[in-house]
Amino acid sequence: MNKLLNIKGITCAAINAGIKNAQNSGVNTSPKDNEKLDLSIVFFSPKTTTAAVFTQNVFCAAPVVVAKNHLNNEVRALVINSGNANAGTGLGSGSVGLQNAYQVCELVAKELGIKAEEVLPFSTGVIGQVLPMACFENNVSTVASALTADNLPQVAQAIMTTDLMEKTASAQFEIEGKTVSITGIAKGSGMIRPDMATMLGFIFTDVKATQPKLQSCLTLATNQSFNRITVDGDTSTNDACTLSATGGSGVDISDCVVEFQQALDRVTKSLAHQIIKDGEGATKFVEVCVKGGASNEDCLEVAYTVAHSPLVKTALFASDANWGRILAAVGRANIKHLKAEEVNLYLGNICLIKNGELNLNYTEATGSAEMAKEEIVITIEIGKNNTAESVWTTDFSYDYVKINAEYRT
Amino acid sequence: MNKLLNIKGITCAAINAGIKNAQNSGVNTSPKDNEKLDLSIVFFSPKTTTAAVFTQNVFCAAPVVVAKNHLNNEVRALVINSGNANAGTGLGSGSVGLQNAYQVCELVAKELGIKAEEVLPFSTGVIGQVLPMACFENNVSTVASALTADNLPQVAQAIMTTDLMEKTASAQFEIEGKTVSITGIAKGSGMIRPDMATMLGFIFTDVKATQPKLQSCLTLATNQSFNRITVDGDTSTNDACTLSATGGSGVDISDCVVEFQQALDRVTKSLAHQIIKDGEGATKFVEVCVKGGASNEDCLEVAYTVAHSPLVKTALFASDANWGRILAAVGRANIKHLKAEEVNLYLGNICLIKNGELNLNYTEATGSAEMAKEEIVITIEIGKNNTAESVWTTDFSYDYVKINAEYRT
Repeated sequence: MNKLLNIKGITCAAINAGIKNAQNSGVNTSPKDNEKLDLSIVFFSPKTTTAAVFTQNVFCAAPVVVAKNHLNNEVRALVINSGNANAGTGLGSGSVGLQNAYQVCELVAKELGIKAEEVLPFSTGVIGQVLPMACFENNVSTVASALTADNLPQVAQAIMTTDLMEKTASAQFEIEGKTVSITGIAKGSGMIRPDMATMLGFIFTDVKATQPKLQSCLTLATNQSFNRITVDGDTSTNDACTLSATGGSGVDISDCVVEFQQALDRVTKSLAHQIIKDGEGATKFVEVCVKGGASNEDCLEVAYTVAHSPLVKTALFASDANWGRILAAVGRANIKHLKAEEVNLYLGNICLIKNGELNLNYTEATGSAEMAKEEIVITIEIGKNNTAESVWTTDFSYDYVKINAEYRT
Repeated sequence: MNKLLNIKGITCAAINAGIKNAQNSGVNTSPKDNEKLDLSIVFFSPKTTTAAVFTQNVFCAAPVVVAKNHLNNEVRALVINSGNANAGTGLGSGSVGLQNAYQVCELVAKELGIKAEEVLPFSTGVIGQVLPMACFENNVSTVASALTADNLPQVAQAIMTTDLMEKTASAQFEIEGKTVSITGIAKGSGMIRPDMATMLGFIFTDVKATQPKLQSCLTLATNQSFNRITVDGDTSTNDACTLSATGGSGVDISDCVVEFQQALDRVTKSLAHQIIKDGEGATKFVEVCVKGGASNEDCLEVAYTVAHSPLVKTALFASDANWGRILAAVGRANIKHLKAEEVNLYLGNICLIKNGELNLNYTEATGSAEMAKEEIVITIEIGKNNTAESVWTTDFSYDYVKINAEYRT
């Protein structure tokens, strides 16, 4: 999954349009922002279908509203800017936020010879600042004239805000002598610089698919990937993920739906895990797996309660096998019928708690060795049912953190 | 409320019994622990009634199990130790944790000439360590022989673990020429040193009351005080609060139930607020008040979502009037029918968001001035209904924190 595959039917480009440098508040600007890529266009061949999922937050950003509207049409292009989220800029019909988001689509459509409603806009960056429209007006034609098939790595860079690493993943499979490719890029940092913690994901494939079929595959994939990662429980106003299918492989999705879903899942899961690993200050990559609940929802509730617990997260940072904190989080999860005597707890393969009590064979040395690893799996059994859910998270490092950590070590 | 009133019918004492210094792991000991008070007894005159509320955590500590059992009897004494929580030490009938909790009651009962089941035990301190029983065996008689009416301030000190300040509050009211007094002490630190974040509260009054009546008053009072404060959303395995009524004033609660509830509310709210203010690293005291939801539960859900948001908490630390983070938290709260255009947001008396949009009269200077205060009230209106709930919380300071804060300032 290392090489980022090109997708037939897709061209793209990214440039520095001065958006990151244009914040009138002076927030987060630096001389280097003049060189950073911040404006991208992805152009699709005709007949491409596009599915999308968006933030559930009631206060979504203006571009999210516009992208949702435009998704009803044949989507021919994406326009993505970093440096400014166009969020908190109004959602009323005459608001400057909505007007600007529509205007960006107009500018792109004019250059590409398509309709404005065939363009989906995405923005990520500071909240509450008006989009610097001159940057778009002066630069959209330059991006549009630079479109090539090979520019996805630049777009992956251009959608970054505070990310330290580009997030990219590709997968391929063969079906009846033909090859289907999927390529995805994503951005998202984590708790540390949360004004820019928006998660964006853009996935492209050369399979041929109807929009409803594509939407169903994307929903399944995001539910097991982007919707299973958490840093601090907060959600962004701008989160979005798209999946566009050009049909360039000549393979119809109905002939390979299982293979396609599996490959798509690999791409989205890889991107989601890359987001977790790039949370600034993250020193651990942690899977919390909960099994045996009365329902999958119960498993998920317990998993999130553990994954969001600041006390568990600081213990993870300190590599402290502090099972008391994990049990305390399990014990307050909002599920019915949890019985302490049915709870087992494992770090990796080490059993710490058996039937609600400290496992007599457990030694702190083995627990500490497990916690010292960079990748940690916490498994919690809360019953005997055939249910299981995993979420992925990271530790809380630095001082809120430093102080928790130093307390016991 | 500054002077801690004595309560007729109550004697108490606290000494250093070496419990804080006895941790076999060497955790959290220092030479000074040899001088710190860590073992207290509170003794009640006959006919005293006692009500109590306990942690809802499924993994509660052994003394909580014993105290719940003993609450069915006439309670004559409390025994409280700090330095060791007797938690995670087993809950099975033969477990060392339960045996030790019962044994502590036996030792106290023997000295006071009462029955073991008339004693409620409370422990707070490190988790997962066996209670150092020799400290109790060697010192209970010393505490018992030191009981006086004036020692509540010492007990308030002796129940502290990582608290920086004793938490005490008293209230009085007159009824038909007689005076009813209520005195409470509490401990609890906050997020920073969470192994010892247990909240304990002990409240005493000279009113005469049946146990059920007392229980109802205590439940009402705790729901609006201790159950409305939050630092990081985690709960302890040892949390408990008792209310004991000696009848020493000669006033029956049925003759003053409204006055009594009001005075009790003042005491519990004061103690709860003292706990929030003593959270180490806390630089702000924050009330999140949510009004107008379809139900009080909806108001509370929104209030907790805002109060638990790490992004809001770090903005508070930075004195950054970051309304985008507050709205994002409101927008993801788990309630139905939230409409962005019905949301108003205030900092103190300053209106930032009106009908879901930035208030045109708002200036960042006024918002920043409000956020610079040590005590901040965030009011969020989410509808027109006649509902309201408040929770009290603090900011997230230090590095997880430092980094968030420096990002925008």
